[in-house]
Amino acid sequence: MKKADIGLVGLAVMGENLVMNMESKGFTVAVYNRTTQKVKDFVEGRAKGKNIIGTYSVEELVGALEKPRKIMLMVKAGQPVDSFIEQVLPYLEKGDILIDGGNSHYPDTARRARYAESKGLLYVGAGVSGGEEGALKGPSIMPGGSPAAWPYVKPIFQAIAAQVDGQPCCDWVGEGGAGHFVKMVHNGIEYGDMQLIAEAYLLMRDLLDMEPRDMARVFADWNKGELDSYLIEITADILTAQDSDGSPMIDKILDTAGQKGTGKWTAINALDEGVPLTLIAEAVFARALSSNKDLRVKASGLLPGSVSAFSMDRELFLQQIRKALYASKIVSYTQGYLLMQAAARTHGWHLNYGGIALMWRGGCIIRSAFLDKIMEAYNTDPGLENLLFAPYFARAVADCLPDWRATVSTAVLSGIALPAMTSALAYYDGLRAAGSGANMIQAQRDYFGAHTYERVDRPRGQFFHTNWTGEGGNTAAGTYNA
Amino acid sequence: MKKADIGLVGLAVMGENLVMNMESKGFTVAVYNRTTQKVKDFVEGRAKGKNIIGTYSVEELVGALEKPRKIMLMVKAGQPVDSFIEQVLPYLEKGDILIDGGNSHYPDTARRARYAESKGLLYVGAGVSGGEEGALKGPSIMPGGSPAAWPYVKPIFQAIAAQVDGQPCCDWVGEGGAGHFVKMVHNGIEYGDMQLIAEAYLLMRDLLDMEPRDMARVFADWNKGELDSYLIEITADILTAQDSDGSPMIDKILDTAGQKGTGKWTAINALDEGVPLTLIAEAVFARALSSNKDLRVKASGLLPGSVSAFSMDRELFLQQIRKALYASKIVSYTQGYLLMQAAARTHGWHLNYGGIALMWRGGCIIRSAFLDKIMEAYNTDPGLENLLFAPYFARAVADCLPDWRATVSTAVLSGIALPAMTSALAYYDGLRAAGSGANMIQAQRDYFGAHTYERVDRPRGQFFHTNWTGEGGNTAAGTYNA
Repeated sequence: MKKADIGLVGLAVMGENLVMNMESKGFTVAVYNRTTQKVKDFVEGRAKGKNIIGTYSVEELVGALEKPRKIMLMVKAGQPVDSFIEQVLPYLEKGDILIDGGNSHYPDTARRARYAESKGLLYVGAGVSGGEEGALKGPSIMPGGSPAAWPYVKPIFQAIAAQVDGQPCCDWVGEGGAGHFVKMVHNGIEYGDMQLIAEAYLLMRDLLDMEPRDMARVFADWNKGELDSYLIEITADILTAQDSDGSPMIDKILDTAGQKGTGKWTAINALDEGVPLTLIAEAVFARALSSNKDLRVKASGLLPGSVSAFSMDRELFLQQIRKALYASKIVSYTQGYLLMQAAARTHGWHLNYGGIALMWRGGCIIRSAFLDKIMEAYNTDPGLENLLFAPYFARAVADCLPDWRATVSTAVLSGIALPAMTSALAYYDGLRAAGSGANMIQAQRDYFGAHTYERVDRPRGQFFHTNWTGEGGNTAAGTYNA
Repeated sequence: MKKADIGLVGLAVMGENLVMNMESKGFTVAVYNRTTQKVKDFVEGRAKGKNIIGTYSVEELVGALEKPRKIMLMVKAGQPVDSFIEQVLPYLEKGDILIDGGNSHYPDTARRARYAESKGLLYVGAGVSGGEEGALKGPSIMPGGSPAAWPYVKPIFQAIAAQVDGQPCCDWVGEGGAGHFVKMVHNGIEYGDMQLIAEAYLLMRDLLDMEPRDMARVFADWNKGELDSYLIEITADILTAQDSDGSPMIDKILDTAGQKGTGKWTAINALDEGVPLTLIAEAVFARALSSNKDLRVKASGLLPGSVSAFSMDRELFLQQIRKALYASKIVSYTQGYLLMQAAARTHGWHLNYGGIALMWRGGCIIRSAFLDKIMEAYNTDPGLENLLFAPYFARAVADCLPDWRATVSTAVLSGIALPAMTSALAYYDGLRAAGSGANMIQAQRDYFGAHTYERVDRPRGQFFHTNWTGEGGNTAAGTYNA
């Protein structure tokens, strides 16, 4: 019997669909699942008649693979990955390749790569995005880890990845946890994009009193322009979907957003790196607030709301919302790219920023026409300091600015919460403020904690302390942290 | 020679001032510093003629103390604390008490408490707030750790703490890292308060073109009302301070805010707990953005700004700013208390929420009249779900609401970044929205990742999946996390 080109462990929806995808590209795939009934169901079901080999033990899986063996895990992030590594280690040989295609946290991937390498193995942590449909038809794949593994993994990954203009949405990202890091930022950006769409939807629903089918037409229309993207497209789809009784499906869905951690990791990483990733953080917090439905229902009865009745031309306001969404989206990607740049400095990665945009252009949840422009911006200037400084985006934001301000102002006065659009605008205005109010914060810190400050009329790096009260003494702070 | 009641290690400004404070309350204090020249300088300087014993080795320090020995560390958080513990351990006996009065991260304190207890010692992690002046005249002290240590530490701590209405701003918080946790949240709130004041200052400076001395009068006036607080008071002081050439000091200070991590820890903890602590997170990000002055100066030349010229009656706008500041501050404390409640559930702490407000009423950086109202709210209803639900605060916010919305809207249209006031309002409107836009997020997650959703017409806890595209199959997601 022909040995398999790759083994895949974990037959939930993503795993199954990746296997079908690989097989359709001519690869023979051995599959294994801890609950072996799933293997049986799969090989007798969707996999029937395909070059897919069911295996019912780790040993059998390893035995079914060509050398160097490539085993891809599609299991739950965390302990299950470590457990499987320990289970499979005794059966592997030097040069065999372990691939984690789940949503592992990148420090775990860095640790596992070191561990696998210490055992003579190669390790790849690959972010895979695209959801169930992407997995089947061509996901975006962001691999990092042991560079020596890439030549073996590349033919399979680039074959199964989404293709845009003949280029695969998959390329080598960097060492250690770089692949899962970039996937984490991708997911954070996905949180931001989804929150922005939810805010646009909320404005249409609650201020314009639009019906889902009318909103669907608006999103479908937006999808023809600069907002052309998978998430806008499925939003239009969702808004046309009907429940079994013929009523709009969207109205039946409870407004409590779940999350599985990658958005949170992105925001935490930004806090650690000191990068103002405000929009994604607000998106994560907005999901947390939404999840407490009972609290919100109670609050709605206790707390007063808007102070101005809303009245505006629908077409005009829809245009304002679209511009607000687009400008906010530009800010979100700007912040995400700043985080990747900071992390690259921290970890010594040489990230290809244009290449990352290229990987995200197809296959993944955030795929969009917009990413072409980002790719162009970084390919034109790989050292671009801030995405907003790229001429295309500076012009785009300038064009949106009046409508963006109008949308946020309307929401503020009407009592509609737009945490993402609002924080994006605050970031924009904060960024372009040559003089901020932070001199007051420095004065306060020096006043109560002798933290010292720099001066506008002295070179950077010289620190001064004022004895503000005439009492505290001239000792500068050594231990007090505030 | 009389043995000392307590030993203090680390003679930077906070340590020195705490020693002076303890001595002034009748305690004899032995002091030690790694760089022993500091001990010499101190005992021959400020400590001369006082009941303060200079010691020049760890062994000498331990020998100078009454049993059970109480040794308080005022050293830099992190490795220096662990190092000192290892240094002093060989000299200590069962029942001796180690106290860390620095800004240690609460998980470190929990770990050290377990370690010290395993050696037969008692351990106290005490948050100390008040800056250099507070340390000298009466700080707020938030002790937690080994409960058996409290009776020994209490007489000293409650004597040196700030007193408000005859009550010390110090009481036992809880086990393990509870004391440092509450201090961390205090510091996070301090970040929020400072950012809010900086935003009010920015509006006065950049929209009303006010001079520092005029702003000083406004803040001094605000300090007589509901905003009465230490930070508003010192803001007025700061705005009157002059540089050596007679010009306003505030205009000479560079607007690049530093930070030492406690605000960041608070925001990270909130992300981990799933508590929407948006205002403090925005305050932390705002400091990060401010610190990149060169980037902002560059951006100011590249990115267009406001679209509407500002014109408004000064007195009217000042009132709006004041109300916006007050309402935002209520939101910030609401979020901070929600974080403490969540952490208490996570760690099994029984926090006394009214008592925490009492500890913060005096001595510390965030001390204010406002905290009396918070204390009353939690003393009236210890199970209060959300501070905004307390009648006093619900009324206060309702009173502020029109001016709060007007202030934020003005800033949005004028191009002034108010990340804290803006995010506070978005939280408020998000909280009181019985119906949010998160049903769209759930629909999207189910569309691309089969994550399932709950329904408005079914009991909570039942999850549904729609096969939106008619292609992806009916397998619900097991491993894909987005």
